[in-house]
Amino acid sequence: MKHLIDIKSLDKSEIAQIVSLARTFKLKKRQPSVGGSTACLMFFENSTRTKISFDLAAQKLGMNVIHFDGGTSSLSKGETLKDTLENLAAIGVDNLIVRTTEDDFIQRCMSEIKVPLSYVNAGSGTTAHPTQALLDFLTMLEKLATVKGKKICIVGDIAHSRVARSNIELLTRYQANVHVVAPEYFMPEDKRDDVTYHTNLADGIKDASVVMALRIQKERFDNLEGYDINDYIRHYRLHSKLIAEYCQYALIMHPGPVNRDVEITSELLDSKKGQTILEQAQNGTYVRMAVLEMLNAKGAN
Amino acid sequence: MKHLIDIKSLDKSEIAQIVSLARTFKLKKRQPSVGGSTACLMFFENSTRTKISFDLAAQKLGMNVIHFDGGTSSLSKGETLKDTLENLAAIGVDNLIVRTTEDDFIQRCMSEIKVPLSYVNAGSGTTAHPTQALLDFLTMLEKLATVKGKKICIVGDIAHSRVARSNIELLTRYQANVHVVAPEYFMPEDKRDDVTYHTNLADGIKDASVVMALRIQKERFDNLEGYDINDYIRHYRLHSKLIAEYCQYALIMHPGPVNRDVEITSELLDSKKGQTILEQAQNGTYVRMAVLEMLNAKGAN
Amino acid sequence: MKHLIDIKSLDKSEIAQIVSLARTFKLKKRQPSVGGSTACLMFFENSTRTKISFDLAAQKLGMNVIHFDGGTSSLSKGETLKDTLENLAAIGVDNLIVRTTEDDFIQRCMSEIKVPLSYVNAGSGTTAHPTQALLDFLTMLEKLATVKGKKICIVGDIAHSRVARSNIELLTRYQANVHVVAPEYFMPEDKRDDVTYHTNLADGIKDASVVMALRIQKERFDNLEGYDINDYIRHYRLHSKLIAEYCQYALIMHPGPVNRDVEITSELLDSKKGQTILEQAQNGTYVRMAVLEMLNAKGAN
Repeated sequence: MKHLIDIKSLDKSEIAQIVSLARTFKLKKRQPSVGGSTACLMFFENSTRTKISFDLAAQKLGMNVIHFDGGTSSLSKGETLKDTLENLAAIGVDNLIVRTTEDDFIQRCMSEIKVPLSYVNAGSGTTAHPTQALLDFLTMLEKLATVKGKKICIVGDIAHSRVARSNIELLTRYQANVHVVAPEYFMPEDKRDDVTYHTNLADGIKDASVVMALRIQKERFDNLEGYDINDYIRHYRLHSKLIAEYCQYALIMHPGPVNRDVEITSELLDSKKGQTILEQAQNGTYVRMAVLEMLNAKGAN
Repeated sequence: MKHLIDIKSLDKSEIAQIVSLARTFKLKKRQPSVGGSTACLMFFENSTRTKISFDLAAQKLGMNVIHFDGGTSSLSKGETLKDTLENLAAIGVDNLIVRTTEDDFIQRCMSEIKVPLSYVNAGSGTTAHPTQALLDFLTMLEKLATVKGKKICIVGDIAHSRVARSNIELLTRYQANVHVVAPEYFMPEDKRDDVTYHTNLADGIKDASVVMALRIQKERFDNLEGYDINDYIRHYRLHSKLIAEYCQYALIMHPGPVNRDVEITSELLDSKKGQTILEQAQNGTYVRMAVLEMLNAKGAN
Repeated sequence: MKHLIDIKSLDKSEIAQIVSLARTFKLKKRQPSVGGSTACLMFFENSTRTKISFDLAAQKLGMNVIHFDGGTSSLSKGETLKDTLENLAAIGVDNLIVRTTEDDFIQRCMSEIKVPLSYVNAGSGTTAHPTQALLDFLTMLEKLATVKGKKICIVGDIAHSRVARSNIELLTRYQANVHVVAPEYFMPEDKRDDVTYHTNLADGIKDASVVMALRIQKERFDNLEGYDINDYIRHYRLHSKLIAEYCQYALIMHPGPVNRDVEITSELLDSKKGQTILEQAQNGTYVRMAVLEMLNAKGAN
């Protein structure tokens, strides 16, 4: 593995290795072996859990961690992206962990420039967030053993969600039965044939093994025709009674941070069922350790 | 030891262990043993020495260090405190080192939430700054062998001083003879029976073994009736002649940063007597190493 | 070696040791031995490559790294420089790595204060940037074996360039034949007898072994009489045809970040000849490792 750009570009043996390695770290069965490599965190969007999770994952592996501050950097002083990246690589950065509002930032980097940097996508625009999909996958495997044939229902702001896109990409590859529930104003334009779309919540979650709510990404839209938060809450908010009625055994997941009482009620979040969301956060550190370990394994670069 | 919230909640065996462990680290007699644990620095107030001191203490112990930036974090985007803390714990944070303007921030955290985080109070509002009191205690012990029966006089802005509160709490427990000197406008409302209060400086410092000046906390008051900096300087500023006259053997201490020529004259600060203030700063790193070592010792969590 | 302030204060055996140690690290022939020392990065000017390079160099040596944030520090709250430095040393900082707009900041520190801090100049005003000169020297040695008797031509904004000053200082000591090319508005006031000055680019670069272009330091001047960027480009920009005509074997160097198509054309930068500039960046990390290793060697402090 040389980069982690999106789910599409991973093959199944790589996904299996990530999951297996993350489990091994989680069970403290293996010491990391990539000490001495250097990760640079280049975050152009605010982030708490993803950034801290990558930072900690790298430190736990014994890696050096550099924080690239977009605001005061040479990039902001007009240096070209190409020159900045080539210099980071020359100075000694091995992995560039990038979060951007731009959909194709990493692709742009890679097409322009030939440098021995491994890129890790920590969330790009509305298109991809592969480590989130991988940690969600690990969480499902721990609880369900397999996703094959399971009904997995993703609910909410699909249109703006890179989490949804990466999860759909990954879950359909493993033959999950993926359903999406969204009001028209959150319905994605790029509908897929292997996913079932619903505007009615009950239809979507009925008999689901997993119900994954998404954060409403207010920062990604201004005026969205038809959007009304109270309407959303009335028709799409998850709550315990609803889950008990339609899919009592379902895992309740959310990539966080949750808008409490918007996407999920506090009573459901704070119930036993809500705890899976924290297991997702926990698995995030192990999945990122696995990804960084694989990117820096001898021979990978 | 599971948390360090304030002096009150420490028992004497814990204080003795902190002091002894700090001395051991200072004398390089012991290698730290908590490598691999993770400290998260969550500072909502500016800080130089305390923050750097904790950061360095954690690094010297081989811990991973995460900086939580309040301004760009999920907290500032409206995530609840409960959710932020639960996620930090899930991601892998072991110790949350917190500085706040709020008096009861950590208590609020602990009452709402059950997460396996160890909290360390790095200064809370005007109420507590326990590691400062512990490093002051270590400094006094190194110089005086014991504080029992010694006259220790704290001078200045007591009303706004968490340093004074934590020191008084600790020193009275060890039977020091604690005196306080302050003008009326800096006198605390919560006077204690086991402390003697003076408005006259000479009365307070006469025959003292320790004279501890405090920083005037201008950032904590706007209009304080009766406050006049020139009046303060005239009646309360420490200088060498005064010390020579009333308590020539006294240790001169200050938690820093000093407002030079306000709380203490430059000639006193720059004299040999002023050097104890730097020994306080030095002891700070060792005391914080001791606290973090104890919080992360096997079995503590 | 106790500090690195400028090239002038280094003797040749120290320079030789820096170069040799940097080469050893680069060839992975030696493990660093100064783990446990603490570097504090105190940058009052923006910086990407120098700051990241020092940060990474320190981490690669196993040092602890502290970031001193000028903006929110006790210095900005009115603490004196003396008190800040004495406290940093007391807390445990060994090396203070400083970048300032002020020419004599470190000299001021050292004259006022006696603390066991090792200072490293990471760029001071327009006067000195010794690690840049050292990494440039290493790069030249790797390519040319020696600089003795070689024509080395520095082109551009000499007046505002600490890089030029440190390079001239170092290269003349090693009997390089140093030439400078600049328009009148960029010509330095402190001309030296051992350097040849030109206003005509072709005269300066003819038969040069090295042509080093400098960044135009727009942030250091407002109204500079006679300065016109188009005039500069017309007469002083380096491009491949010019190099081919006057000094076809010359190394092309630049301290970065490059103002593309101002100091050097993109076609030259992106050609094979432009790659030396990245080798400079790469050597920067190794030179800084060497400097930090020497400053922290047992007995150095």
